[in-house]
Amino acid sequence: MSGDSFADSRAVAFSGGVGGAKLVLGLSRVLSSENLLVVANTGDDFEHVGLHICPDIDTLIYALSGLANPETGWGRGDETWGFMDTLRRLGGEDWFLLGDRDVALHARRTELLKAGWGLDEVTREIARRLDVPVRIVPMSDDPVRTHVRTDAGELEFQRYFVREKAGPRVLGVRFVGAESARPNGDALAWLADPRLSAVVICPSNPYLSIDPILSVAGFREAVGEARAPVIAVSPIVGGAAVKGPTAKIMRELGLEPSALTVARHYGGLIDGFVLDERDSALAQAVRELGRAVRICNTVMRGVDDKVGLARQVMAFAHEIRGLLDARRERTRRGVG
Amino acid sequence: MSGDSFADSRAVAFSGGVGGAKLVLGLSRVLSSENLLVVANTGDDFEHVGLHICPDIDTLIYALSGLANPETGWGRGDETWGFMDTLRRLGGEDWFLLGDRDVALHARRTELLKAGWGLDEVTREIARRLDVPVRIVPMSDDPVRTHVRTDAGELEFQRYFVREKAGPRVLGVRFVGAESARPNGDALAWLADPRLSAVVICPSNPYLSIDPILSVAGFREAVGEARAPVIAVSPIVGGAAVKGPTAKIMRELGLEPSALTVARHYGGLIDGFVLDERDSALAQAVRELGRAVRICNTVMRGVDDKVGLARQVMAFAHEIRGLLDARRERTRRGVG
Repeated sequence: MSGDSFADSRAVAFSGGVGGAKLVLGLSRVLSSENLLVVANTGDDFEHVGLHICPDIDTLIYALSGLANPETGWGRGDETWGFMDTLRRLGGEDWFLLGDRDVALHARRTELLKAGWGLDEVTREIARRLDVPVRIVPMSDDPVRTHVRTDAGELEFQRYFVREKAGPRVLGVRFVGAESARPNGDALAWLADPRLSAVVICPSNPYLSIDPILSVAGFREAVGEARAPVIAVSPIVGGAAVKGPTAKIMRELGLEPSALTVARHYGGLIDGFVLDERDSALAQAVRELGRAVRICNTVMRGVDDKVGLARQVMAFAHEIRGLLDARRERTRRGVG
Repeated sequence: MSGDSFADSRAVAFSGGVGGAKLVLGLSRVLSSENLLVVANTGDDFEHVGLHICPDIDTLIYALSGLANPETGWGRGDETWGFMDTLRRLGGEDWFLLGDRDVALHARRTELLKAGWGLDEVTREIARRLDVPVRIVPMSDDPVRTHVRTDAGELEFQRYFVREKAGPRVLGVRFVGAESARPNGDALAWLADPRLSAVVICPSNPYLSIDPILSVAGFREAVGEARAPVIAVSPIVGGAAVKGPTAKIMRELGLEPSALTVARHYGGLIDGFVLDERDSALAQAVRELGRAVRICNTVMRGVDDKVGLARQVMAFAHEIRGLLDARRERTRRGVG
């Protein structure tokens, strides 16, 4: 695939944090920067120590600006920890690690939001200042908060995920504010654009990172009406999550942790599903759901893996687009 | 004086930032820690980068916790600057220097205020965590904001003082919110306490650091009614400010920058005035205003100077107290 050019291809990517950001980085190297729009989950956002923190947007910004810490996948590589040391001494909550440089980003965001800017505007300003080459938009400027119902009570996402280290048993998830939140306008415009080549659902947690985006009124419909193929990449490989607690959560929700379950979860929303080589045995079952299947390596260790997977996804979208157009043509001519 | 013991002496000190904090540190070494209450100017407080910053309280906290930067007089000695570097890159305002550890204090304060704590409570909590041995109270939990009218327009204090480096010509000063602000209750109780030995007006800027405190409805009256002598230490030595723009501001307000002008400014509010040795020629003029005078070194370079001046101030207060009591006794007996 490496010879393919995607210079004129255009994609919208739906992404959570670490896993999604890897594929987004790959897409940013494969597509022209003006041809990629990333819709970030903001269901994980929270107010903490007086700061407005957007963990998934930040992870995307750090990944795309080259500032990310390659060891952790979150935060910056060039951090110092004086803020955190002092916060601890002052009795502040210390379960969410905030590096000194990272805090400046949250403080600037908090300041601009207080001054009346929208989250989209703020995100654009911060991304521009950090030389992020592609457009990242929050799923909504309005607050949507992922709450996890657990056997330890209902927890805000970060408290469940970071403070409790995803330990409590998950009973359900809800997205507070999703009904009234307005979807990002540019994301809707991109989805409706006939020039769009692909809608990419990144290998993020379907229940905690992608569903919050789709829960915002209008997004599911806009994806359904997009002329471009919708491609999801499985975050589950060989029955385990590549990263994070996705498999654990699936088991707690009574679901078998397998790529097939993820494909079923997205259902008719997607046209194609990218399976890892290790899961090729599941290809037939996914096809029987009516989905096209692409099998390749989906575990992204270095930049080459990220770019390689991005190329696979875009090539897959082009193939499906051809099939869809051919079918549409046949339908138009009354054949097939 | 160094043989005097002030173990049972009790003082309220009115203080601004750097200059005041030096004498407060001295007082904290001379008095038992439970016998000193510091009323801090909060007219300089401001919201900046989403943080609630109290420059004078912070300077006092850092001075009394031993964390202060001895070079600058403000901020901490053990700082790093990742926050500031990043804030600058993000296009944030960079005229007010915020160290990484310092930011944690502001963030914790901002968080607690947002959670509904009063500024007094927040200050007590932060001071306790940083092992500050004496009680520092804000002049009020309600916002009072010092605005400086200048030839460049009306400026909030920090913008005048830090961003504009006190450059514009001062035409006047006003304390927005002072009429409706409620004075700190513990400060009022201490001032009314018959055990009080001294009210100390620290060598801070009379117009920009002490007047905001006295402008809060009730403070001037409470100082006037205190049975303890009220002692002011001149911030002007030899016609120049020991630190900061006090002398410049006095000239701009049409006042001669001299310790005598400061004594006149405080007028009948004070019983005694501490003049620097270099200003001994002014002693007679200050006495003619009806004030007792103490002459000593007031320029505090090291800890010894701070402790020395604190001893002078407390000994002076005890002397005046004796004179006041004798006069009262004579009045009672119909003599004198």
